[in-house]
Amino acid sequence: MIPVNPERFLADLHTLRSFGAAGVGKGVVRPAYSDPDIAARRWLAQQYADAGLEVAVDPCGSVFGLAPGRSLLVGSHSDSQPEGGWLDGALGVICGLELARAGAAAGVPISTVSFQDEEGRFGVTTGSRVWSGNTSLEEADQLVDRDGVSFDEARARMADMVTGPVDPTRFTGFLECHIEQGPWLYEAGEAVGVVSDIVGIRDMTMTFEGEQNHAGTTPMHRRKDAFQAMLRFQALIAERFRNVVTPQTVWTTGDVELHPGSHSIVPGRCSFSMQWRDGDKDRLDRMAEIIRTAAAEVAEETGMTLSTSDMLGLEPVPMDASLRAALEGAAEDQVPGRWRKMQSGALHDAASVGRLMPVAMLFVPSIGGISHAFAEDTDEADLVAGLKVLAEAATRLA
Amino acid sequence: MIPVNPERFLADLHTLRSFGAAGVGKGVVRPAYSDPDIAARRWLAQQYADAGLEVAVDPCGSVFGLAPGRSLLVGSHSDSQPEGGWLDGALGVICGLELARAGAAAGVPISTVSFQDEEGRFGVTTGSRVWSGNTSLEEADQLVDRDGVSFDEARARMADMVTGPVDPTRFTGFLECHIEQGPWLYEAGEAVGVVSDIVGIRDMTMTFEGEQNHAGTTPMHRRKDAFQAMLRFQALIAERFRNVVTPQTVWTTGDVELHPGSHSIVPGRCSFSMQWRDGDKDRLDRMAEIIRTAAAEVAEETGMTLSTSDMLGLEPVPMDASLRAALEGAAEDQVPGRWRKMQSGALHDAASVGRLMPVAMLFVPSIGGISHAFAEDTDEADLVAGLKVLAEAATRLA
Repeated sequence: MIPVNPERFLADLHTLRSFGAAGVGKGVVRPAYSDPDIAARRWLAQQYADAGLEVAVDPCGSVFGLAPGRSLLVGSHSDSQPEGGWLDGALGVICGLELARAGAAAGVPISTVSFQDEEGRFGVTTGSRVWSGNTSLEEADQLVDRDGVSFDEARARMADMVTGPVDPTRFTGFLECHIEQGPWLYEAGEAVGVVSDIVGIRDMTMTFEGEQNHAGTTPMHRRKDAFQAMLRFQALIAERFRNVVTPQTVWTTGDVELHPGSHSIVPGRCSFSMQWRDGDKDRLDRMAEIIRTAAAEVAEETGMTLSTSDMLGLEPVPMDASLRAALEGAAEDQVPGRWRKMQSGALHDAASVGRLMPVAMLFVPSIGGISHAFAEDTDEADLVAGLKVLAEAATRLA
Repeated sequence: MIPVNPERFLADLHTLRSFGAAGVGKGVVRPAYSDPDIAARRWLAQQYADAGLEVAVDPCGSVFGLAPGRSLLVGSHSDSQPEGGWLDGALGVICGLELARAGAAAGVPISTVSFQDEEGRFGVTTGSRVWSGNTSLEEADQLVDRDGVSFDEARARMADMVTGPVDPTRFTGFLECHIEQGPWLYEAGEAVGVVSDIVGIRDMTMTFEGEQNHAGTTPMHRRKDAFQAMLRFQALIAERFRNVVTPQTVWTTGDVELHPGSHSIVPGRCSFSMQWRDGDKDRLDRMAEIIRTAAAEVAEETGMTLSTSDMLGLEPVPMDASLRAALEGAAEDQVPGRWRKMQSGALHDAASVGRLMPVAMLFVPSIGGISHAFAEDTDEADLVAGLKVLAEAATRLA
């Protein structure tokens, strides 16, 4: 196994945490292109250089540490949510640094990366999506954050660091280590999870439009109440999903807006979000069909006008069989009987990179299943176990 | 019958419409204490004076035209919704003007009034509530509109017109004519409706609080989704209301808010409005019981924390039997076979005034059931029929 150094790895994780430390628990505030994010990336570049790697920064601000020749790529992202945990993608970035550094010392070429804007200040996994050609840089430049800042303007803040595009064909594959962000490993007392696939996502906004009216003078049977139509729709899909979904399937309505939103007015319009995730493309499509059919039926039944936004469709990404096998073998070697195969319900940079090369992912437990919050944490023993499984897998793949 | 003049009545209605004319259909924009509202009240006061009535303006800005001695009071309100119809309360105000004026000429003492802020810039039926002692002037002065203006500041704009409190004991009863604001009379081709009672209202905000979480990594059975709890609650009450409600009962959720309101986050909090109306106090209470029980059950079942705002409770107001009988007799006299008894699902000034004296109400049709909108309208023949029924009833009561 590449001779990784757990103490150095943990020290680096804590150093990275100092960039944008929230002062609340171990939390960090390090959104993409913020001062702490750019400072963290400068520090990373210096670590890469100190390890004898070639530093390359692509036009999005993703920072690479390149080993000579063709090599495995190991990394994740160091930007955080506006209120983020200290591990999240940072864990994968420091795993990558330690593996590349230890590899360089041991003569095993391993490259590393911290992708930019995984957390979606401007989109979702923006840096890795542009690198993998899912989105063009021109399209990305049009994206605007909540405060009206464009991607174009934001990435200009790192322009002095940019060296140019990084050729993906120099990498043989990509390994990403990440916290689970869910409860399974932690509750089972297991050390790591080898990801089988990253689920696909469908996401859209639906709107029923009926008739705004007086909540006192309009009898129930004469109403075209858009909220009631939405209730009927939700009941219908819950019923029809029963024989389609698996225990891994999820669906969420996280946003609802009624117009005009007054206690005394029968709402004339109801807009709401629908998002569903599953590892199987056919199931995602069957759910889309149920959703569209149920909404059309309810609209017909209740005299509503139905409209829907474009549907965002991210396809499921299966992990590469041989990279997975290396991770599984390494897990059985390092933490025998204390690992499982599992799906990733969250999106990760590996999903973008999967368009370019074989990819695989390793999860470590999240205490209490908490993530995207200052309270996010993982036992240090589990962090080190994750590093060792990754190092063993990289050694097997070298 | 007091010799009312339909042409003069219609001309006055159109003159009142010119104060705050929206320029869209016949619509008006004349919210309480706006410049057009105050100008309309000055014009009304002049009409009262010209008719030989004593003009009195109370501290809220409700404008009275007083006949000598004890008399019947006839009127409504001339303020409008921010986007109002031309009739609404204005119809009752001009009916009152015409009856008081024709009465003065014929030696039949009839007084008239335009209450202030019926439409609730500061509350609901603010002017008549203060006059009737439902709310003290001191409490009302604390009310603030959407722009942060207090009732205190707003009524100061009419301070030069105020003559002082108006003694309610000088009136023998109150008649209010209003558009129906619902579809029943219009669809039946009937001319007027004699109101049996004004429904009571219960209104509150309810909140389920669960657990905000990742919409990808949190399995369905592990979620504490506040939106799903709300769905369950709505289904439960719809089921349990079945054997309690009548065709006149209404209930409405007009406002819903999810926190944090993101497509990718399981909502941790759902706040929503519940309002229900019925003519029977016991039924309102039974519905309140169902709502509270169902919400508590759902909270228990789903592990939510339930909280509710104070409940607004306006009791049903039955119309006075002898005033009603006068209206019914007058209706059968003026529009035989073309009238009905009916409930008012909307709140009106008569509900406040009912605390002080016998009250009754007369409805005229709303074309298409539309109200609180620029498109609100009523056939002029129906306006005149309403005036005549009111005049005949006032004559019988004189």
